[in-house]
Order: sequence, then structure tokens, then C-alpha cells
Amino acid sequence: MVEFIGIERMRELVAARGVARFITELAAEIEADFLRWEAFEKSPRHATHSAVGVIELMPASDGRLYSFKYVNGHPRNTAVGLLTVTAFGVLADVETGYPLLLSELTLTTALRTAATSALAARHLSRAASRVMALIGNGAQSEFQAIAFHHLLGVRELRLYDVDAAATAKLEHNLARARLEGLRIVRCASTAAAVAGSDIVTTVTADKRNATILTPDLVAPGMHLNAVGGDCPGKTELHPDILRRADARVVVEYEPQSRIEGEIQQMGPEYPVTELAAVLAGRARPRRDGDEVTIFDSVGFALEDFSALRYLLRIHHQQRGTGQQIDLLPHLEDPKDLYALLAPQPRAFAPRAGAAA
Amino acid sequence: MVEFIGIERMRELVAARGVARFITELAAEIEADFLRWEAFEKSPRHATHSAVGVIELMPASDGRLYSFKYVNGHPRNTAVGLLTVTAFGVLADVETGYPLLLSELTLTTALRTAATSALAARHLSRAASRVMALIGNGAQSEFQAIAFHHLLGVRELRLYDVDAAATAKLEHNLARARLEGLRIVRCASTAAAVAGSDIVTTVTADKRNATILTPDLVAPGMHLNAVGGDCPGKTELHPDILRRADARVVVEYEPQSRIEGEIQQMGPEYPVTELAAVLAGRARPRRDGDEVTIFDSVGFALEDFSALRYLLRIHHQQRGTGQQIDLLPHLEDPKDLYALLAPQPRAFAPRAGAAA
Repeated sequence: MVEFIGIERMRELVAARGVARFITELAAEIEADFLRWEAFEKSPRHATHSAVGVIELMPASDGRLYSFKYVNGHPRNTAVGLLTVTAFGVLADVETGYPLLLSELTLTTALRTAATSALAARHLSRAASRVMALIGNGAQSEFQAIAFHHLLGVRELRLYDVDAAATAKLEHNLARARLEGLRIVRCASTAAAVAGSDIVTTVTADKRNATILTPDLVAPGMHLNAVGGDCPGKTELHPDILRRADARVVVEYEPQSRIEGEIQQMGPEYPVTELAAVLAGRARPRRDGDEVTIFDSVGFALEDFSALRYLLRIHHQQRGTGQQIDLLPHLEDPKDLYALLAPQPRAFAPRAGAAA
Repeated sequence: MVEFIGIERMRELVAARGVARFITELAAEIEADFLRWEAFEKSPRHATHSAVGVIELMPASDGRLYSFKYVNGHPRNTAVGLLTVTAFGVLADVETGYPLLLSELTLTTALRTAATSALAARHLSRAASRVMALIGNGAQSEFQAIAFHHLLGVRELRLYDVDAAATAKLEHNLARARLEGLRIVRCASTAAAVAGSDIVTTVTADKRNATILTPDLVAPGMHLNAVGGDCPGKTELHPDILRRADARVVVEYEPQSRIEGEIQQMGPEYPVTELAAVLAGRARPRRDGDEVTIFDSVGFALEDFSALRYLLRIHHQQRGTGQQIDLLPHLEDPKDLYALLAPQPRAFAPRAGAAA
């Protein structure tokens, strides 16, 4: 039997901890795995594109555990009441190849993306960052808000979305989440939201080269957390932002980000730093004050690996409606798969016999 | 909710039809998909190798549906009571990216591999093929036996395995399956099994370059169905068999087979024919009598695509213990993912508000 975490079980697991603690613990798991970057077998994800979206498979392994995530990105889905991004994934034992856990990863993707964004910002943004613009107020925005409030100490959130209803939804949810000392400001434009911010988080969903941020909006010292542009043809930053002399771009996994990230707009020699090097202190620290740091986030399989391992652990620890599914056969004799389909299944007792 | 076919449901689906009818219907589905080969987005599978085995992801899409299979290959598993190969997979809607079906594919892989083998042999073997050697009598052997008996009219099966218990198990299962008019002969060696056979099916599991068949055993006119060698470093045929002037090799998907198939032993210019061309009549027919035909089977994602679509159809048609799992969230507002985790989930009613 394979452990199963569906949506209900996931709600139970998060409710028992609270969203903030869940993201904090998950960020620690992700950081620990990025610190052993060399232990992982890494590859760019496998993407199948169609006119309306993309379906991706994201495998990762540290030689002991293996994980993959299935994730779709379909910006037009919301028009018919469906999510832009849904996901699920599996954690497996490398020694046997047997899956251990099948889990929902739609909620988890939002949680781990926010955890990774906050983790990167903790190392990249100025120490005194207290004001964050949040451009794009859709499904992932609450998670980013909570992560930056709890892990970075953001005290003011400046919201903007082309869809005013999305902003109203975000504001409503944040009010009910009672984030102590957090001021929420609804803004009339991206420019109004960005002005005076220390951190700018963009988490929009259009599948096209959009220009959410233009160079004139970006002030020295800002940290840009570019979450929404994450597949070929889908970007959020004007390329001149990347061309700024004071810009420094950090990516998760360079080969994948060259294909999918904001840096797809730049040549193959455009310099980037991998997040693992930043976290491990191998990359030079931020030039405080002036440097514009950019976390060009696309989401990497290692983050899902960390999340699935974390989920399996808390799933085992925490009583509740945990469920198992019969995804795999259990056999008396592993060479006797057919026994499962035999007219009247019955254990086969080996016997001697003549050979021709 | 996503439809779920676990082991119990799969047993129920196969039991209602019988193994032979299931394989026959599945072979027709697979053939129909190979006949629209150009409609598919194809890629070699993504493999993660370890010292003891491999875990693979196999995606395919025809632009309307998308599927992937997770499959492991761990030859040493049987020593600890586990299966060498387990698998599961998902069928999804390309339009929305939403998964439709999660299914076991361990039993299904054995069924679809046998269906594909029989399909290829129906086009490649001599018309009067009645005797088949079956080398390797493990988990997949019953399925091959049943497929070739029903779809090819094989009347005599000549069995050999280095593990006599595996052969006894196969013989036991075939006896209970009551395959009308099928004679079973247990042989003392590969050579004894192969001598006089029209078709030779090798379905062994060692992860190393094994030489199950040597050139001296292969007679003109034979059809070789090489199922077991299916990843880098794992082959079953002596390369001189492939070098025979009268040999003709048919593969499923050339780029993947060059990496994984028997032809990994040959150079990149070694000529092969794709199965799709054979089935569509675009490749020349067999030179009857003398040609040695070789189906260098490694298993291709299209076969799992066909199988998953077939499974979903009969799952919908057939009453029983069908199950659904809450792998995906259902939201009132698709931009309000956070609502699932809010302290007291409550529908959000949009309201007007002032902008900064």
C-alpha cells in the first residue's frame, strides 16, 4: 500500500500547524536540501506544451529517495472555474523503486514556492526590508504574503492586480488570517504599489511575454521576487531590468532557468548565480544599499522533493484521516504477477517436474 | 475528483473480460494509436539510474489527451519478495491540464507489453508460426504466453528459465488457464527450447549485458521477440545476431531504442524499422521463409497512453468498486486557493473597496 495525502488530509496537516509554521518548517527542509546540492541528480523538467498551457514532469533524486511532480499551467482555466496550476507528486524509495507516498501538490506548490521565495529573499534583500509590493493577487498571493511577513518581517504589503476582485479576495483572506502588525494597502497600479517598496513580488499568470515591471519602476536596492514567469514565452520583467549594471540575478537551477526563467530573454552568457551557492555562502554577499537583486524563480524539482519528504514525515506523525491506496500489488511470489488475475487466485506451491 | 483504478479494481476489470479478451482489445487500441503515429508528441523516457535499478517517467500526448507512466526496474527486488517492475500512471486532459485517471500499471504493463509483442509478431513472424520458445518465466511470461496463443495461434510453448521454480510457476498458471489446444514443454536449456521454434520470446530481467540468445541458436525464418533487454547495459541478444545479413530489426521509437534496446550494441547507422511503419504498411513486408525478424521491444509511452484511455473507458462502463480520490482541489473561486486553508473556510463575497 502507498500512503495517500489528498486535499482533505492536506488541509488537516496544515490546519494542525497553521500556514505560517508549515511554511517556516518547509523552508528549513528546502534550505537543508539546497545545502547538499551536489547530492542531487538534477535535470530540467519535461514539458509538454499546447496552445492553452503546459504539463510538466519534475523529477529529482538524492540517491536514497526519488520524487517527481506532475504540474500543469493553464492561465485560461480560471475562466471556466478551474485552477491555473494543479499538481500532485510521488516520493519513492530508490533502493526498491517502490512509491512510498502519493500526495496532492496543488496547495503544497503554493506553500513551497512561498517558502523558497522567502528563503531566497532572506539572503538577498536588504536587512531592513519592511515594505513589499505584491503584483498579481491570484491563487498564490496569500502564501507569498504570509511567508514574507513571517520569515522576512515584512510590515507593509502593497497590493495590485489587473483584476480588482482578486485583490479584494487577497485582502479579505489576509484580514481573516490576522497577521500581527501587517499593514495592507490596496494600490491603483503596479507603479503605485512598487513605489517605496523594498521588495517586489510578481506572481502573475499570463502565458505570454508580459512586462509587469518596467525599468523606471525599479529603484536601487530593491529585491525583485519574480515568481510568475516560468515557462518559455512567459516572463514578467522588462529585459532592461536584467541589463541594469547593478542587477544581480539568482536562479534555482541554471539549465532549467535558461529555458523558463526571466533570463530566457538574455543570451547564454548572461551571468547568474545559483541559489545553492548563495545559501551555502559560496557566492559573494549582497552589495547592500545599491544592488538590485532578482530571484528569477521558476520552481525546481528539489523543492518538491523536500516538500514530499516533509509531508510524509508529518503524515506519519499526525493522527487523522490518513489514507492508503492499493496502487501496487502485494504478491506471495514476486515472480507470480499473473496469480492476481488467475480465475481463482490461490497460492502456488512449487513442485518438482521433468524437463524436456 | 480523479478516477482511481487500484489493484483490486484492476482485477475486477480484467476478471469481467478474461485476460485473453482484455489483451485482444488492448492490442486493437495500441494498433489504432500506432496508426496515427504522427499525431503524438514523443520523447525518450526520463530515466534515473542507481546501482540497483532504474526509475523512469514516460510521457506521451496526442494533443487531446496526455499520459505518463512511472515505472521502476529493480532485478534484485525479487530476492526480498518485491516485484522487479511496478508501475502506475495518469491520463490527463490537455485542454485543462487536469488529471482524469490515476491507475495502477503494474498488471497493465504486463498486459500491454504482451499485446504489443503479439501485435508486432502478427506482422513480422511467418504466417505458419505455431511453436514458441519462452525464455525467462518470470512475472511477465504468462501474459506473453496467453497473448501469443490467442492472437497468433501458437500451439506449442517451449519453456526455459535459469530458475526452475519460475518455470514450474508458469506451467502451473498456464495449466489452470486452460488454453485450448496449447501444448506446454518444459526444456532443460535455452538451446533445447529454441530448437525448432518459429518464435523465440526472451523476457529475462538481469540488469547487465546478458547473452540469452547466441547466433548458433537462431535459424532462418525465426521471429525473435526480445522483451527483456530494455535499458542501457541490459541486453539479451548476442550482437552477431543483429549483424546477420538476413536480420531485420523493428523498434517502437527509434531515438529511445537506440539508448535502451538490443541495438544499443550497434552503431548509430545500424538500420531499423519503426513498428508504426510496419503496422501502416509503409515498410516492406517480411521476406517469408528466410528472414530473421527481431522485435527489439523496450516499451514505449504510446502503449501506456492507449492502455490508460482503454482503462478509463471500461472503468466507466463497468460497475463495481470504482473509486475516486481527492487529488485535486475544487474551489468556488479558482483564484482563492488559500480559502482551503483559511481558519474557517467560508465563501468569499467580492466587495467594492478603495484603491491607494
